[in-house]
Amino acid sequence: MATIGIFDSGIGGLTVLRALHHALPHESFDYLGDTARLPYGSKSPETIRRYLAQNIQFLRKLQVKALIVACNSASTVIDSDHWHGLPLYGVIEPGARAALQVSKTRRIGVLGTRATVASRAYLNALHRLDPDVHVVQQACPLLVPLVEEGWEDDPVTEAILKRYLDDMHAHGLDTLILGCTHYPVLKPALRRLLGDEMHLVDSAQVMAQRLREDLANGRISPGQVDAPHHSVDNDRQPSRIWTTDDAATFREVGARILGPNTHIQWQHADLY
Amino acid sequence: MATIGIFDSGIGGLTVLRALHHALPHESFDYLGDTARLPYGSKSPETIRRYLAQNIQFLRKLQVKALIVACNSASTVIDSDHWHGLPLYGVIEPGARAALQVSKTRRIGVLGTRATVASRAYLNALHRLDPDVHVVQQACPLLVPLVEEGWEDDPVTEAILKRYLDDMHAHGLDTLILGCTHYPVLKPALRRLLGDEMHLVDSAQVMAQRLREDLANGRISPGQVDAPHHSVDNDRQPSRIWTTDDAATFREVGARILGPNTHIQWQHADLY
Repeated sequence: MATIGIFDSGIGGLTVLRALHHALPHESFDYLGDTARLPYGSKSPETIRRYLAQNIQFLRKLQVKALIVACNSASTVIDSDHWHGLPLYGVIEPGARAALQVSKTRRIGVLGTRATVASRAYLNALHRLDPDVHVVQQACPLLVPLVEEGWEDDPVTEAILKRYLDDMHAHGLDTLILGCTHYPVLKPALRRLLGDEMHLVDSAQVMAQRLREDLANGRISPGQVDAPHHSVDNDRQPSRIWTTDDAATFREVGARILGPNTHIQWQHADLY
Repeated sequence: MATIGIFDSGIGGLTVLRALHHALPHESFDYLGDTARLPYGSKSPETIRRYLAQNIQFLRKLQVKALIVACNSASTVIDSDHWHGLPLYGVIEPGARAALQVSKTRRIGVLGTRATVASRAYLNALHRLDPDVHVVQQACPLLVPLVEEGWEDDPVTEAILKRYLDDMHAHGLDTLILGCTHYPVLKPALRRLLGDEMHLVDSAQVMAQRLREDLANGRISPGQVDAPHHSVDNDRQPSRIWTTDDAATFREVGARILGPNTHIQWQHADLY
């Protein structure tokens, strides 16, 4: 039974795995985190493109039936919806679409890594879908390290978020795209700063919705519920998380992102 | 005329290049920053060891006469003072020696990345040199991103530093090892928090002192002052900075660390 492949530069994409695990109870996943070379968000498009190709190649060999790039920085270099015949999903276009669905003022903010902001990928995707939308971008290089330090509910993090959001206030935004898969962890802090009215668009939720549709319409063949049960949670085989570096902190932060009751096998991916 | 090779995971080691450039006016340098795979401080010893070997190999091909590992995280995996006949320097042992030279209370603190702290390299080096020394370590994963964001003189950075230093106060330290080559940039903020009495030991200064000695005693053959002048600053060839990824931010942060009047050629190192 083929799995769905998920790729991220590290462990932030586990927010996407978590949402998919919950939303698609009959599917199993192979998640690859390139922890040996993370982060991608500070690196150039050329380097990101080379790394992405190597990582996708690894997932293809596992016979996955679809490929999800659960990393915004890596999604910025994708220019096709398939990879050697396999359905390929980035988070940018679905995120832009979701933002336009909820925004009433057509004034949308984007938070992202340096690479994501410099690529203007969300800006271009939003303008392709609606030439009149007003978009403000903000690079937030400190947010990933803060999440990885476990300080998501800390006054320091709130002070830094406030700084990043400062310039955005004047623009009258009603929607904010969380353009990095680490950021959903910061939702409570963002809610405190922005109030309940602001729409927060989160790659994890967006991707879950998109895959539900494509499993229903047959673009991806659905997992079988009556397949032989190798499973720990009784309705599917366990998903696997592959990492290219096995430092203990990755598993700690990963476990915190996944939360309890997500049955996972951690494995080493020997990519070199 | 052979250069001195300097390796770092990224651009933090430019604090070392800057000090050496200043202290050794007759030497030229080839600096390699592995910006495509930085940071090393969050990664495992196995991955760091593999990367270090690949990077040193690159510098050897440039015919350098000595190798300096200007990265604390990478220095923790060095177990020899030579590499295929070339003198090899890490920052750990010279740093530990310098700390013991200035400490009166024999109570020494170490700030470092997760990898450096987990390796206990400074702890072991200090205890080898003085079994009675009291050592307190603190991992500070946010300091590198803060320096790379250019926030070295920011209240947020001071709040984060305060947090990291909090547990150290009770130990009556008189000396603090800045166990990451990014940290010298934070000296003014550290001075404000710790006062003028605390000795700050900085890999850049320590390494400059050590190389001056080894150029004098012949372990490294000195650069020639009367060599043909290809130079921009008139007494040496320009040094070169090689990076494995060329994102613009690396050069910006690098230029800020180097300060004005350091004549450098930036080059791409194609390691893959």
